[in-house]
Amino acid sequence: ENRNNVDSNFKNYLINLKNLLFIYLYQFLISLKIVFSSFIHRLIALCHPEKSIKNQIVLITGSGGYLGRHLALEFAKRNAILVLWDVNEDANRQTVEQLKSQGFFKIYPFKVDLTDQKAIKSTAERIRLTLGHVSVVLMVAAASFKAKSILDTNFEQDIEMHFKISYLSQLWLIQEFLQPMINKNWGHFLTVSSNSALIDMPLISSYASFKLAQTKLIETLREELIFNGIDGVKTTIAYPSILKG
Amino acid sequence: ENRNNVDSNFKNYLINLKNLLFIYLYQFLISLKIVFSSFIHRLIALCHPEKSIKNQIVLITGSGGYLGRHLALEFAKRNAILVLWDVNEDANRQTVEQLKSQGFFKIYPFKVDLTDQKAIKSTAERIRLTLGHVSVVLMVAAASFKAKSILDTNFEQDIEMHFKISYLSQLWLIQEFLQPMINKNWGHFLTVSSNSALIDMPLISSYASFKLAQTKLIETLREELIFNGIDGVKTTIAYPSILKG
Repeated sequence: ENRNNVDSNFKNYLINLKNLLFIYLYQFLISLKIVFSSFIHRLIALCHPEKSIKNQIVLITGSGGYLGRHLALEFAKRNAILVLWDVNEDANRQTVEQLKSQGFFKIYPFKVDLTDQKAIKSTAERIRLTLGHVSVVLMVAAASFKAKSILDTNFEQDIEMHFKISYLSQLWLIQEFLQPMINKNWGHFLTVSSNSALIDMPLISSYASFKLAQTKLIETLREELIFNGIDGVKTTIAYPSILKG
Repeated sequence: ENRNNVDSNFKNYLINLKNLLFIYLYQFLISLKIVFSSFIHRLIALCHPEKSIKNQIVLITGSGGYLGRHLALEFAKRNAILVLWDVNEDANRQTVEQLKSQGFFKIYPFKVDLTDQKAIKSTAERIRLTLGHVSVVLMVAAASFKAKSILDTNFEQDIEMHFKISYLSQLWLIQEFLQPMINKNWGHFLTVSSNSALIDMPLISSYASFKLAQTKLIETLREELIFNGIDGVKTTIAYPSILKG
């Protein structure tokens, strides 16, 4: 009986190994395609001059996180006025301190919970009244995830957060800041998706699903802008891989 | 002034026309790609014998609708036992009558609201106890949509329904019926997505976003089945265009 168990375990091990190798090979080929198209996009970008954002108001969500903080630094170097949103005040304060230590002071941090539409609305209103028109919105905030099979995934622990942070909050942000951009025919929305939106992987269904829904929201926005002849309001979708921060 | 208005209207008209033509050309090229890959898939399917579903229990959601009804007819012809779910009892009854008028009688209609997890759970339990193991689940039910710009889209009227019908209900259905399929290493989930998941169009952000999230759920399910060495449980994603029904 023991012998049979060992055999059966070894067989399962081989099946899993074969499947893993298959998945890795498949993802490797897709990754090659992504790297190639990124390269083409980079070439196209090289042919365009960098957009000046000097003294433009740039809103960054998730500015206490690794990516948000580094984007804040890059935009500060280009003389933007930074509006930094994070639900984690301590993390946001660290970003502000890092910016100040490097000589940047045009920074307005806010504690905002992106799952709360009222908080988004009231903070946006406050910014409009005190600072003015936000012309760049970088939607970087993301919900964390645990690896879970579809059978173990549930609404309260997994889906609700991803639905609200990755999808709903981005819709609300667009609804707060788009109209003035359309009126001026000048503005930019950037959303940070994930390479899991492009690659299929097990165990991250709710994270990946709403990262993909989010890209569809931005792609639809892009079509609506084209459809209405608004050529000065731009959209960007970024697909980062795993970050070290 | 009138003259200026006419000029401006005409200019807007031209911009919109140009954009429309651009969108149509772009979508046409994508459609060509889709038709080509459909053709390849059809060729691959031709090389495989049709799976026998004689006396298998086949669950169809949205069986009162055009597509659900026609799928019911096709599966009845292949001698399946049909479990028909629709929230609209009248429409479901018409499907049953049409099936009976053509000589098919192995039909079990249920009124189920897919936005209600308890209703899904209790009906699934009833089917398990009275009929047995469901081995094919066709997730056809979809929420209707109104063309709306992103600025006019809101949670209550638009997003909630698409989120629940296209995404949540499919997760709940998988959670009800997957485990017995895995135990037997035999079963099939088919989900009806939409060509709007593949093509970008204005005015249907919530419909398209959750149709795309839904495809990601099924693609992740596929990866998890591969990952666990379950080769007898299959998934299919269909991308229909506009249907006449």
